[in-house]
Amino acid sequence: MVVLPFSQSEYDRRIARTRKAMERYGVDVLFVTSPAGMNWLTGYDGWSFYVDQGVILTGEGSPYWWGRLMDANGARRTTALDDEHILYYADRYIQADDCHPMDDLAEKLADLGFAKAAVGVEMRAYYYSAAGHAALAEGLPNAKLTDASGLLDWERVVKSEPEIAFMRKAAAISTRVMNHAMEIAEPGMRKNVFVGELMKTAIEGNGDDWGDYPAIMPLLPSGADASAPHLTWSGDAFKVGEATFIEQAGCYRRYHAPLSRTVFFGTPPDYMKAAADALIAGLAAGIEVARPGNRAGDIARALETELWKVGIERPNRAGYATGLAYPPDWGEHTVSIRASDETLLEPGMTLHFMPGLWMDDWGLEMTETILIRENGTAEALCSVERKLFVKD
Amino acid sequence: MVVLPFSQSEYDRRIARTRKAMERYGVDVLFVTSPAGMNWLTGYDGWSFYVDQGVILTGEGSPYWWGRLMDANGARRTTALDDEHILYYADRYIQADDCHPMDDLAEKLADLGFAKAAVGVEMRAYYYSAAGHAALAEGLPNAKLTDASGLLDWERVVKSEPEIAFMRKAAAISTRVMNHAMEIAEPGMRKNVFVGELMKTAIEGNGDDWGDYPAIMPLLPSGADASAPHLTWSGDAFKVGEATFIEQAGCYRRYHAPLSRTVFFGTPPDYMKAAADALIAGLAAGIEVARPGNRAGDIARALETELWKVGIERPNRAGYATGLAYPPDWGEHTVSIRASDETLLEPGMTLHFMPGLWMDDWGLEMTETILIRENGTAEALCSVERKLFVKD
Repeated sequence: MVVLPFSQSEYDRRIARTRKAMERYGVDVLFVTSPAGMNWLTGYDGWSFYVDQGVILTGEGSPYWWGRLMDANGARRTTALDDEHILYYADRYIQADDCHPMDDLAEKLADLGFAKAAVGVEMRAYYYSAAGHAALAEGLPNAKLTDASGLLDWERVVKSEPEIAFMRKAAAISTRVMNHAMEIAEPGMRKNVFVGELMKTAIEGNGDDWGDYPAIMPLLPSGADASAPHLTWSGDAFKVGEATFIEQAGCYRRYHAPLSRTVFFGTPPDYMKAAADALIAGLAAGIEVARPGNRAGDIARALETELWKVGIERPNRAGYATGLAYPPDWGEHTVSIRASDETLLEPGMTLHFMPGLWMDDWGLEMTETILIRENGTAEALCSVERKLFVKD
Repeated sequence: MVVLPFSQSEYDRRIARTRKAMERYGVDVLFVTSPAGMNWLTGYDGWSFYVDQGVILTGEGSPYWWGRLMDANGARRTTALDDEHILYYADRYIQADDCHPMDDLAEKLADLGFAKAAVGVEMRAYYYSAAGHAALAEGLPNAKLTDASGLLDWERVVKSEPEIAFMRKAAAISTRVMNHAMEIAEPGMRKNVFVGELMKTAIEGNGDDWGDYPAIMPLLPSGADASAPHLTWSGDAFKVGEATFIEQAGCYRRYHAPLSRTVFFGTPPDYMKAAADALIAGLAAGIEVARPGNRAGDIARALETELWKVGIERPNRAGYATGLAYPPDWGEHTVSIRASDETLLEPGMTLHFMPGLWMDDWGLEMTETILIRENGTAEALCSVERKLFVKD
């Protein structure tokens, strides 16, 4: 008997919401490729997204899981789907020159009666490849393939109470990891040894709440490397006179609460202290306007106003929706915190408010995962002091 | 001054090989999406593959890196490319409804003179999405987009001596992790705590050889869950009477040497001991025929012969090329160890010989990363005893 992370009524609610969105999009059947979408609809969980797989949602009844033969056992053990709703393709389709797994999906969809249907596919999703799309189109010549990117993703933006409970557990893990990081970081410590400690702490989790793997590995460039936001680590040692930002997320059952802070060894230069103060003010200003009725762009504008005061202009967005995620991204690809984003904020949205500064030869990050609440300003889910951490 | 993992002459060799392959494929310019391909050609390294990026290789001169504005600094810090060969798109293209980063790539390729060229793209590669392909085709209406999946990948199959040195370092890390795993595993230990220890060990690395993140997180289902190959961990405790397989890879500067072993707590049933013995014999038989002049399929047949003796028929391939890799896969998507694969084995190939057994209600893995040598049988790069580990 499989115990799902959420109640069946929670999954029923999600399926019903997605079906309503399918009606709006005019699709008869939805093929969900994103691993987060698959998990959200059925509970399916496994590191099998490196091969073609997906969830097929029709207008009624249970969803279908579809994937590689060897992963059907994973579907049996992580979803409540019965065997008739677990469809698979033979191993010979894997990385073969003469056929593609999506040939099999086309057959399965035809068998289910969708040979001439409007089939929604996630053309922007990770793991929905150009080759797969071409094979599916060829296999379903009379179907209408419709780009339904975002259809399901937007249904995931507002988190339910049980999901918010998971986000809080993830945030508690993030907090624990960052506190540990700031405790052990010291000049001379090799960065890989440091990251090993962080990963151990993240996966240990928090008491009974075991830690899952994050969708992005810890990012922690130092000194001039911190001008580049997405560098991971090396075996170099922390040096006096350098800032290192630490961007990481605790993860509880695939739910993420990203959190970043920066540590400086020695005496930070004045421009860095000023930037840190501006970030602190900017985070506070953004959180202040992060409330129902305002728009995502309002958060960005409030932040930017504070940064302009010290002459910093960011050319990048300042955050995004976060939560249930798989590699390579803990962002949900829906709401962006940028001036042009007109999304109305709603209670239950969770955003990584992420005003990283990546300058020509230094960088600084101080970020929060925030929850939009029914009344008042947003809540920062983690609880690590907002400051530039300094170690002499 | 950027210090690349390999000498400039090694990168020159790779570029020259790829250009010859481009001639065979009849493409004027190659757009390399796979992060491993980008790294192999230029050294580029960063967790930025969650947004559109790539390396543009033309018929002459230095390659171009192309990606998001904020990641251009990462290209400056991890490649030897000059600023003219680092191209980027504005942040507003990210996850926007009204434009796609590949619109910018189309403009850049046209600027470089390829508006009417034969443009090779990796349609099967991760992170080359169906939507991106459609945007690129629309932006280059007079170009001929050609599927060049595998063009570069096949040039990576035979590892150079410096690459083999990296593989050995990765293998030493794998060995260290597995030895530590077998040392600490015990009934009652929570699996997440166990994985935390493994990740810490993997990232610490081996002496000066710091550990990098693996392209796949540790897989370690227990008991009946081990019928499913791709389950990660939970907070459950190891139990007496259950087998757990541990599939993991040490990683040195993005080079992987996967290694799996299985541990049983208590007294293993006879069928499991028989299966383990058959796997040991099958690995030895496969390694025996893994030599230049034989084919990849010969390894599979030698293994299968041994497994049939105890009545086991595997419906899955028994391995694949491995080495330089990024999430979500440490496989290289070229050689497969299966009867139908006619690839001639060549010295310098590195394969994950991977005969996992995933039965109806149990599983067993014992795998090796092997190097095809000029003379004689293949070399197993890791050095952990081949047996079913038993802990009473």
